[in-house]
Amino acid sequence: MRADVHRFSLVDPSDVSGLRRAIDQGLVDPGTIVAVIGKTPGNGLVNDYTRGYLTLCLSTLIGERTGRSPEEIRETIPFVFSGGTEGVLSPHYTVFTVVPEARPSDGAKALAIGVAFTPVMRPSDIGRQAQIDAVAAAVNQAVVSAKIDEVHFVQVKGPAFMLADILADQRDGRPSATDNPGKLMSFGRAASALGVAKALGEIPAEKAVESAVLKDFSLYSSVASMSAGVEVKVNEVIVVGMSGAWTGALAVDHTTMADALDVASIHAMVQRLGFPAAPQIAEADRVKAAFIKCEAQRDGMVRGRPHTMLNDGDINEQRHIRGAVGAIAASILNDTGLFVSGGAEHQGPDGGGTIAVIAERAVRRAN
Amino acid sequence: MRADVHRFSLVDPSDVSGLRRAIDQGLVDPGTIVAVIGKTPGNGLVNDYTRGYLTLCLSTLIGERTGRSPEEIRETIPFVFSGGTEGVLSPHYTVFTVVPEARPSDGAKALAIGVAFTPVMRPSDIGRQAQIDAVAAAVNQAVVSAKIDEVHFVQVKGPAFMLADILADQRDGRPSATDNPGKLMSFGRAASALGVAKALGEIPAEKAVESAVLKDFSLYSSVASMSAGVEVKVNEVIVVGMSGAWTGALAVDHTTMADALDVASIHAMVQRLGFPAAPQIAEADRVKAAFIKCEAQRDGMVRGRPHTMLNDGDINEQRHIRGAVGAIAASILNDTGLFVSGGAEHQGPDGGGTIAVIAERAVRRAN
Amino acid sequence: MRADVHRFSLVDPSDVSGLRRAIDQGLVDPGTIVAVIGKTPGNGLVNDYTRGYLTLCLSTLIGERTGRSPEEIRETIPFVFSGGTEGVLSPHYTVFTVVPEARPSDGAKALAIGVAFTPVMRPSDIGRQAQIDAVAAAVNQAVVSAKIDEVHFVQVKGPAFMLADILADQRDGRPSATDNPGKLMSFGRAASALGVAKALGEIPAEKAVESAVLKDFSLYSSVASMSAGVEVKVNEVIVVGMSGAWTGALAVDHTTMADALDVASIHAMVQRLGFPAAPQIAEADRVKAAFIKCEAQRDGMVRGRPHTMLNDGDINEQRHIRGAVGAIAASILNDTGLFVSGGAEHQGPDGGGTIAVIAERAVRRAN
Amino acid sequence: MRADVHRFSLVDPSDVSGLRRAIDQGLVDPGTIVAVIGKTPGNGLVNDYTRGYLTLCLSTLIGERTGRSPEEIRETIPFVFSGGTEGVLSPHYTVFTVVPEARPSDGAKALAIGVAFTPVMRPSDIGRQAQIDAVAAAVNQAVVSAKIDEVHFVQVKGPAFMLADILADQRDGRPSATDNPGKLMSFGRAASALGVAKALGEIPAEKAVESAVLKDFSLYSSVASMSAGVEVKVNEVIVVGMSGAWTGALAVDHTTMADALDVASIHAMVQRLGFPAAPQIAEADRVKAAFIKCEAQRDGMVRGRPHTMLNDGDINEQRHIRGAVGAIAASILNDTGLFVSGGAEHQGPDGGGTIAVIAERAVRRAN
Repeated sequence: MRADVHRFSLVDPSDVSGLRRAIDQGLVDPGTIVAVIGKTPGNGLVNDYTRGYLTLCLSTLIGERTGRSPEEIRETIPFVFSGGTEGVLSPHYTVFTVVPEARPSDGAKALAIGVAFTPVMRPSDIGRQAQIDAVAAAVNQAVVSAKIDEVHFVQVKGPAFMLADILADQRDGRPSATDNPGKLMSFGRAASALGVAKALGEIPAEKAVESAVLKDFSLYSSVASMSAGVEVKVNEVIVVGMSGAWTGALAVDHTTMADALDVASIHAMVQRLGFPAAPQIAEADRVKAAFIKCEAQRDGMVRGRPHTMLNDGDINEQRHIRGAVGAIAASILNDTGLFVSGGAEHQGPDGGGTIAVIAERAVRRAN
Repeated sequence: MRADVHRFSLVDPSDVSGLRRAIDQGLVDPGTIVAVIGKTPGNGLVNDYTRGYLTLCLSTLIGERTGRSPEEIRETIPFVFSGGTEGVLSPHYTVFTVVPEARPSDGAKALAIGVAFTPVMRPSDIGRQAQIDAVAAAVNQAVVSAKIDEVHFVQVKGPAFMLADILADQRDGRPSATDNPGKLMSFGRAASALGVAKALGEIPAEKAVESAVLKDFSLYSSVASMSAGVEVKVNEVIVVGMSGAWTGALAVDHTTMADALDVASIHAMVQRLGFPAAPQIAEADRVKAAFIKCEAQRDGMVRGRPHTMLNDGDINEQRHIRGAVGAIAASILNDTGLFVSGGAEHQGPDGGGTIAVIAERAVRRAN
Repeated sequence: MRADVHRFSLVDPSDVSGLRRAIDQGLVDPGTIVAVIGKTPGNGLVNDYTRGYLTLCLSTLIGERTGRSPEEIRETIPFVFSGGTEGVLSPHYTVFTVVPEARPSDGAKALAIGVAFTPVMRPSDIGRQAQIDAVAAAVNQAVVSAKIDEVHFVQVKGPAFMLADILADQRDGRPSATDNPGKLMSFGRAASALGVAKALGEIPAEKAVESAVLKDFSLYSSVASMSAGVEVKVNEVIVVGMSGAWTGALAVDHTTMADALDVASIHAMVQRLGFPAAPQIAEADRVKAAFIKCEAQRDGMVRGRPHTMLNDGDINEQRHIRGAVGAIAASILNDTGLFVSGGAEHQGPDGGGTIAVIAERAVRRAN
Repeated sequence: MRADVHRFSLVDPSDVSGLRRAIDQGLVDPGTIVAVIGKTPGNGLVNDYTRGYLTLCLSTLIGERTGRSPEEIRETIPFVFSGGTEGVLSPHYTVFTVVPEARPSDGAKALAIGVAFTPVMRPSDIGRQAQIDAVAAAVNQAVVSAKIDEVHFVQVKGPAFMLADILADQRDGRPSATDNPGKLMSFGRAASALGVAKALGEIPAEKAVESAVLKDFSLYSSVASMSAGVEVKVNEVIVVGMSGAWTGALAVDHTTMADALDVASIHAMVQRLGFPAAPQIAEADRVKAAFIKCEAQRDGMVRGRPHTMLNDGDINEQRHIRGAVGAIAASILNDTGLFVSGGAEHQGPDGGGTIAVIAERAVRRAN
């Protein structure tokens, strides 16, 4: 198998002209698309409808070109969109394709992708053991079915709910972890992240986990990236890693940022991917996609000085931190089309985050 | 003469405990304070009252400790506060002091500071030739009186006006450049920056200038940093540079950023100040203060990809770009207590900006 | 002919279940729909994509049920959505249908609706004479073709443009009235409103008009309601009035509000529609739809006291005034599903606004 | 005793020119000021510093004119400022004075005011029984000492804390009810309101109360108005009512609004104060002050239609509801200088609120 990665810019969330053109030009075979991950120009909070809008437009396009209904497309291809392109960040979507390809004998590992879905979740499942276990099972299923040797990135998009849905479930005798819609998104990201950590052995299997949700932040996954949105009712799981069973020119690596200014870890990871040491990489076109999770440090400090993100009544803390960490990563990667997502509960250490980069391997470039 | 720089953290804009303690401990002689520049935790737009609040609290404190009235203090010491500490940025204020000191014979230049004030401005003066000329004259006065050889940073804080003031001036027969309060702040920053550029020869003296205000962005100053706020009625001018007539351990340098991701220019400047080449400086305590201007690129792009800062109805473009460029600078300087100001009209190139850093000289550290 | 009005709630802008159910139950014949007007839960500013999202979903639904393509539906049925349901306002859409019906001999006038479209507009046409004339022509066409005797409400939805579009047109030698996307929306609403005023004789035909755009606010229409959005490229015109050639139980009336607190004019209008005098109407189900335009008073005052809407850097002035005037109207009409739109340039007097109400006639209720 | 009420406009929170002029003109004797309540032009959330700024400016002015220090003034006079003047609302402050005056023999009750303070509160006291009991005791003290017969309004301003303070208290072994600063403000308002309700017998004395905080919203006070701000460390209590022991031309009454559109209750109350029945009162200058609490309905509905206030990531729910209910009250009272405060936990019924109006008695007007 060979995994490819195609990234397209968008500003208007209905703008699917990039993928349409690529399909028309034969650059992307729509039948080989296995997942789409992107950033839309909304606020990334409960009332961000840009995610659903792009999902509708892309599933309609792919449906048209593959002769299937948009509903069918949405049930089989995960569309994971995170809203919020603060600062220099650029709205875009990244299309993952998988095609059969005979494996060469060079023995090198290559980029591999697996996807899986959990069953439908109710508001009252969010943040609970039911979600943790369902996500862990889906991760395992994706890893096994795609024969992934090293996992570098797990994206999960789980459901968010409007207040009316939460209250309806509560009236049916199923109270949610909270009746605050934004807070419930936080519970959902937390539980899914712990599910990933459990599946990958980052948390001991015997560890009690539901009680740790949004409480014990020493438990986290270094490869998990969680989003939540009202447009999905299941958890969509995408596992990205390296595999000896796959082929192709692409590689992925990841790292954990200890805090928002931890650029040393990003530079080390970029060098592992074959980029020469430099404050900003020169071969920007070798970067195919980057995925970042980050969160405002909970003690209100960054390297000994106070920040104001958690006290701000005008701009949500997630918008602040995405703009900041996204800009730092962009300045290193020489690229603003980054997937940067806030709400990093149990996704990397408190105040830090995680970053995964997919890049063309240097050895290919040398040829 | 010797110039010193003392930086204090604050979150609450009434928190002057840092300076109070430094005075009480004899670290700062309040009678030697010549200027204060800082970032307050407001929105940095028209209705940001955190700037005036901190000005009142600091002028009251300095007045108490010097036996003068707060009004007198405000008339003789420029307090230049810019609101908005987005992302990782940290609210703080930097106190400049000047003390007489015999000049040693080492011949090295040292940090030098000069200040000057323009006459009172009316709303209808803002963005006009009157403001350009007044600021240029004040810059020249500050340079000459402080015997500055190289100018690296000129901070001007000019007046902003509420709608009522603008309309009152208009009723008196003096229409403003615009009756939009936020837009008039923009005009004021633009005209002041052109005034600085004219005084320093960055724009040919014969060049027509008023007509270029907010129109011809090829004209700009690489050392100007303009703020505007309702709490001042004059333009307060602070010139920072190097002088053979001054002494002390501090140096200042500056650079122009070609765009928001131009980290190469920052690294080069930091190395001129004696820091070893590194993605992030290790000797963070040598950085005494940094001053940055930045602005969203007017064509809506950053390095070939669209940004959304100019289309956003929820977060002002200045808040976006401050958070982004501030984070990038913080990641290099290993310091979040940076003065980062948006609204960089004619202050550096379109979409880029300027940065000046005051640092302890490496040679002193070696002793 | 008979005009009917069907109003449906929505929160998620993709929720078209209300109309779907009404079609399925035979309450609405999809082939008779002539226009849809609604409020979506976005910010109502440039980057509000909820309008386009709902347009896509509704045109897809109506297309499915009428056997036409969504594109064809959007070209023949105006979808006029304004974003922003601040405060107590409720997201909803109102579907207008027209069916042939023999005219009874009672001689009473009844609700009548006419629609028309202008040609496609470029960014450089917005706010210019081209737009004024095109809108005036479309209004006349709608009035004549629908035989409307009294015009009470004219809704125009005109194009808005992202920065990239504006700059592209400029590069082709066609500079726009402004290169600020939000400001250009304002120009567009202003020019369209003057077009309506000209068509209806509210402005003398010989009057110079382009020069008055956003300058001379003594010129205005008392029935015009303008919106702008990136999802349309033409001006869509809907004229609502009373006609002796139409039949049915519905009537429409309108009034001008002198300022934001002018409830007397609303009460008088409601009584003309047959409601008993009361601070809040009791027969709320007789109200079928209400359309309101409003704007923050430009001198910064309301009845002698200052307001802060024009100085606010966190919440756009339109969001402020919609929430305020919308709540006042809701408190009188006993209904929160109101179309309340800000940006009322030349639509009613400065600081005031207009309101039109469609209601079931009292005489029918008595039967 | 005679209580008087003086209301002054402000936009800039440092603008105390209104009171200064009134003192200079002999209209207000600064030594008789017992309390100040007002609305400042901030966001009304955690990072709103306009409240502290006005407090500093007013306490400095009153201190100057009474020969006391600003600190002493702030310890003896409650300054209760709520941020947020959304929509048509106007920033202002209302000064209450009390002067000795011989009681006439007419037997009528008159406006009476009592004030009291609780001890200093820690973050960990907020929302707990300690705060409930302290506020109840202060209310009783104020009622008794001022001989108030009917209580119509109780304003309490309690402390809010920044994240750093909350975490410091937690490190000392005293965990707060929540470590979210905005949420802790909510806990504080809730507990204080229950304290008022307990003191006034609105809740049975034997009722368990701490467990009801932010949980059982069937328990509430109809006269309580709670604010919270970082600028105070104690709960400042102001009780306003009618007393047979006081004299003067002023009266106060109050009512409970069942929901955001409950104008009937406001009209009834206004008529009890002697205003003729009308949609908008004509004698606006008889209104001396009005105090309103309101909150977005928790089930997401208003009169059967959904609202979006609780799902909005861009504008805080309190800003939405203040703008809406404030505008409705302004349209009835013909006055925008109203104290409208959100965050009405246990202050009036869910989704509704309370309003108290101080007005000149009609009988005096007739003379």
